[in-house]
Amino acid sequence: MIDLRSDTLTRPTEAMRQAMARAEVGDDVYGEDPAVRALEERVAGLFGHEAALFTPTGSMANVLAVGSLVRPGQEVICESSAHIARAELGAHATIGGVTMRTWTGQRGRLDLPAVRRMFAPDMGPFFVPTAAVSVENTHNFAGGAVLPIEDLRDLREWADGVGAGVHLDGARLWNAHVATGTPLVEYGAIATVLAVCLSKGLGAPVGSLMVGGRDAVDEARVRRKRMGGGMRQAGILAAGGLHALDHHVDRLAEDHEHARLLAEACGLDPAEVDTNIVVVERSDATEFVTRAGEEGVRVSVVGPTTVRMVTHLDVSRADAERAAAVLARL
Amino acid sequence: MIDLRSDTLTRPTEAMRQAMARAEVGDDVYGEDPAVRALEERVAGLFGHEAALFTPTGSMANVLAVGSLVRPGQEVICESSAHIARAELGAHATIGGVTMRTWTGQRGRLDLPAVRRMFAPDMGPFFVPTAAVSVENTHNFAGGAVLPIEDLRDLREWADGVGAGVHLDGARLWNAHVATGTPLVEYGAIATVLAVCLSKGLGAPVGSLMVGGRDAVDEARVRRKRMGGGMRQAGILAAGGLHALDHHVDRLAEDHEHARLLAEACGLDPAEVDTNIVVVERSDATEFVTRAGEEGVRVSVVGPTTVRMVTHLDVSRADAERAAAVLARL
Amino acid sequence: MIDLRSDTLTRPTEAMRQAMARAEVGDDVYGEDPAVRALEERVAGLFGHEAALFTPTGSMANVLAVGSLVRPGQEVICESSAHIARAELGAHATIGGVTMRTWTGQRGRLDLPAVRRMFAPDMGPFFVPTAAVSVENTHNFAGGAVLPIEDLRDLREWADGVGAGVHLDGARLWNAHVATGTPLVEYGAIATVLAVCLSKGLGAPVGSLMVGGRDAVDEARVRRKRMGGGMRQAGILAAGGLHALDHHVDRLAEDHEHARLLAEACGLDPAEVDTNIVVVERSDATEFVTRAGEEGVRVSVVGPTTVRMVTHLDVSRADAERAAAVLARL
Amino acid sequence: MIDLRSDTLTRPTEAMRQAMARAEVGDDVYGEDPAVRALEERVAGLFGHEAALFTPTGSMANVLAVGSLVRPGQEVICESSAHIARAELGAHATIGGVTMRTWTGQRGRLDLPAVRRMFAPDMGPFFVPTAAVSVENTHNFAGGAVLPIEDLRDLREWADGVGAGVHLDGARLWNAHVATGTPLVEYGAIATVLAVCLSKGLGAPVGSLMVGGRDAVDEARVRRKRMGGGMRQAGILAAGGLHALDHHVDRLAEDHEHARLLAEACGLDPAEVDTNIVVVERSDATEFVTRAGEEGVRVSVVGPTTVRMVTHLDVSRADAERAAAVLARL
Repeated sequence: MIDLRSDTLTRPTEAMRQAMARAEVGDDVYGEDPAVRALEERVAGLFGHEAALFTPTGSMANVLAVGSLVRPGQEVICESSAHIARAELGAHATIGGVTMRTWTGQRGRLDLPAVRRMFAPDMGPFFVPTAAVSVENTHNFAGGAVLPIEDLRDLREWADGVGAGVHLDGARLWNAHVATGTPLVEYGAIATVLAVCLSKGLGAPVGSLMVGGRDAVDEARVRRKRMGGGMRQAGILAAGGLHALDHHVDRLAEDHEHARLLAEACGLDPAEVDTNIVVVERSDATEFVTRAGEEGVRVSVVGPTTVRMVTHLDVSRADAERAAAVLARL
Repeated sequence: MIDLRSDTLTRPTEAMRQAMARAEVGDDVYGEDPAVRALEERVAGLFGHEAALFTPTGSMANVLAVGSLVRPGQEVICESSAHIARAELGAHATIGGVTMRTWTGQRGRLDLPAVRRMFAPDMGPFFVPTAAVSVENTHNFAGGAVLPIEDLRDLREWADGVGAGVHLDGARLWNAHVATGTPLVEYGAIATVLAVCLSKGLGAPVGSLMVGGRDAVDEARVRRKRMGGGMRQAGILAAGGLHALDHHVDRLAEDHEHARLLAEACGLDPAEVDTNIVVVERSDATEFVTRAGEEGVRVSVVGPTTVRMVTHLDVSRADAERAAAVLARL
Repeated sequence: MIDLRSDTLTRPTEAMRQAMARAEVGDDVYGEDPAVRALEERVAGLFGHEAALFTPTGSMANVLAVGSLVRPGQEVICESSAHIARAELGAHATIGGVTMRTWTGQRGRLDLPAVRRMFAPDMGPFFVPTAAVSVENTHNFAGGAVLPIEDLRDLREWADGVGAGVHLDGARLWNAHVATGTPLVEYGAIATVLAVCLSKGLGAPVGSLMVGGRDAVDEARVRRKRMGGGMRQAGILAAGGLHALDHHVDRLAEDHEHARLLAEACGLDPAEVDTNIVVVERSDATEFVTRAGEEGVRVSVVGPTTVRMVTHLDVSRADAERAAAVLARL
Repeated sequence: MIDLRSDTLTRPTEAMRQAMARAEVGDDVYGEDPAVRALEERVAGLFGHEAALFTPTGSMANVLAVGSLVRPGQEVICESSAHIARAELGAHATIGGVTMRTWTGQRGRLDLPAVRRMFAPDMGPFFVPTAAVSVENTHNFAGGAVLPIEDLRDLREWADGVGAGVHLDGARLWNAHVATGTPLVEYGAIATVLAVCLSKGLGAPVGSLMVGGRDAVDEARVRRKRMGGGMRQAGILAAGGLHALDHHVDRLAEDHEHARLLAEACGLDPAEVDTNIVVVERSDATEFVTRAGEEGVRVSVVGPTTVRMVTHLDVSRADAERAAAVLARL
């Protein structure tokens, strides 16, 4: 069975398992886990930020990150199919008290004119002020689309001018980096705070990080504990993340190549597949998924007529070719 | 001074004051206030719904109404400048745990194709389901624009098909009714639950109502108490509302005529002014407001370059003409 | 029917209705209602505080008051049958994010040694710090018991020493004042923030106030709007409150006398009835209430075996005597 | 340095690390992680419950467990120094909307008469109903005190009679089990829902479980994701937990023996030390901790005058004897 449902399905490699087994650990609630500290410092450095915070999931990293910019009663503006709007079960509202408004972008794109029109400055206690704009790169439900760095720089420049924060949901920012060659630190530069994930394409079993300024991270550490994310010897997991950063970033290029193979097989223009996600519109979405499964290829339904397939560490070139053959038949 | 800042500024007339002074009251927390009951039954009846609930403000009525359709972790879709998104201080998120996504409509219009694209059916516990769509009629920040009843009927038909609720923020639904002649009961028919306000154009000092099914209203009664809205001898206020329904609905036509006078004075097309709100875009908004004030006309700033003026019960024909003369000079 | 279920049942007198009908009003959301301002300033002054805020209910005043001292994730300590713990539907947790711990006092009394043992200073981000202690005077579910001012002064002194706030739920503080002769300003002195109610023994139809420092009140004004408590021409109601302060405070002594009559009739020691509430423990509570009702006296059940009767403005001496006769028979 | 600050400090043994490295894993958000499933089934079975749910922390397990019994606006009653009240940063209120009331027990004991007096049945929408009672066994801040199983059985019998749930915070229930010989299944029998922890005395690096009925666990799975606790290949961690259950339960008896050594050295009655926690009252708490640290023994301050020391997997007999010698000198 070739499993293309998600890149969250990746299993740690043998080498990663050994790195985890050897991890030097301590009680991270007390700030004493060397592997967690090493990971947090390394990831903060990669993005040119002061600090980072390890979390059990990308959802928690996003809630902490958005919450560091947007207080209860304030709003964040994001694209209407953003993961923070669609796939975090409303946590930004229920836990963070954050209000959202959305624009709808072509392939998840930033629409800065729309953002500028929607932006609400602080006009006193009768209106909800816009505290931040959130962008997702790559954009999951837009099929792994890369947001052009130029657009993000424009956003940042405008945001600085009006005093808004920028949240970057970088769950798959590694894919954008590899696909475009844009240095991570340049992505870091456009974000006030960001969230990155280790357990998707990078293949670590568990873990994400919120990345930002020292004060924001210190405060998020307390909120992380309140949310139940204050793990103890989390260095076991962090070691997997460190290993992934050493060994699994560059190879994402292979996933992207495999995704283009799948796209071609589905009759899509491979140039429209930026990274490792292929989205196909099919009126027979559910049936399509069933039939693909019968032929050994698992894909998933993410909307009434939307099929998604994702390449990742556990899908080899041979797997991708075999899956492409099956999909082409369907 | 002619005060055009808002129709919330209306003061009760002498006749309304006497009606309030004579109100038969009881303890409404115990459900024993005759005037409140009469008002609730009357308003429910006007819209063809089973029940209604008196609240101290339109914000509370909206939070209760949306909350009756949308549970914590679910979402409501609304227009991006809707009052529930912009002017209720995030209560839907902070108190209701409700997530929002928005479309942007020309003059606040419903964009049903956008709603259909955004709509998320219940796809299991990984995604936020769309529980309701909210429309505002007339639309405050779109300049008192009326939503065509045909659009609302289309929305309702579609919503029924997909199992979504429809929330109608009818703070100024009375104005839409008078401007178009559409019977109130037809507006009621397109809404699963609605909120209407008595203290804007209708001139009552305090009070709004949530209107909907019996079960929704019964449950909202408990949430109203939790929010601190369980007033005691609220019949004093309800009597003002009953008086307003008797005497101040039809006369809204005058406010609309006065608004058109103001629009013309500002160089706008009066045909674009549907009801009692006139919105003028001015790069010198703040200065404009100051200068108008110096000449005895108070208007307000509702966006960086947006001036708003609102006609109401306390603005006579002569006032409107005088204000128009001042505005024409500016 | 003599209605002793609650002093919230009081109906405005003719004089109060006339005062309300004559009220000078404005839009209080804009801070422009003269009657509301007058009431807020007068009540703040009565307690020697800087400011006050008018609210539709005592519950909202309490949520705003406690919330001004206790932030989400912090705790308030109160007596286990306090109104804020028992009768506000969990709003302090659901809306304010406030944690509670409780002591149990003889007749609702403050147990300062217990409070001192429970008090948690700020020990860093692993523990919930105690931000405030709340006391209720008179104590509703303890049968209108008065908390001795000496106890409250001791609390305040200790609280100042440890940096904790003191919240005084003074829904019936007027009764304590009349029963003991302790000046209102002395009660004000022991509280960092307090809530008082106009629609119980004082006989106004609707309204309470949060009383405290200028900054706390300014911030509470925003939270009041978020909770749906930003009423417009609330001066109609405030005028009832001003009238009540002029005419209905001293007469509470009559209510207290009537309550002692009832207590005697029920075989209780009248010396144990401090103010206007009489609580009787009866294993046949529900039946007792039914039978009293059949004889024209309405009382209420507030616990499985607890019957409560409350005297108030609408219960005359003759009513009290007649009710006492009925109760004595039962 | 002998570290007695907490049993959360334990580091995985070499054998546990190897078990984790060999874990068969999958995507647990999709319910496909074999090690997580095995752990959940095993732990559910140990307590005679239908299901269990793996969580990153004990705090999250407690929030999910309490939340499965107590809805927003309802209350849980617990001991005033319970971990859920004192050390979870208010999450039960801020995230769960849960109200608390507390009794204070001698050494954290259940005070069933107090609970019975505090219990509030559902009396309609004016009062907060008691949905559950929470007990903590062993009781952390009461010095690892064991709650007698007879008391818990009495609680359960009473709770069944009144329709209340029982939450058992069993972070250190393994210690109670080993100290008393009471079978785990008997503890399970007194709880409607419980939380147990693997990363304290049991020595796993990360992980707790909520244990309860199938429906409660299914619903908690969704809330876990909302809280950011839906980890992917969590089987790496679960394998550590499975190893701990095989190898680290019985050896807790050694920790208890070591704790008695420490108690004796501090001049306490070792019979008062039920398990692995020793609490010493010292007016010079902070200084005491510093001086112990200078002599190679780390202990912690958990209250203004309260020192706590905890024995665990990484404290050998020799360590305990050396620590005892140091403490005796102080």
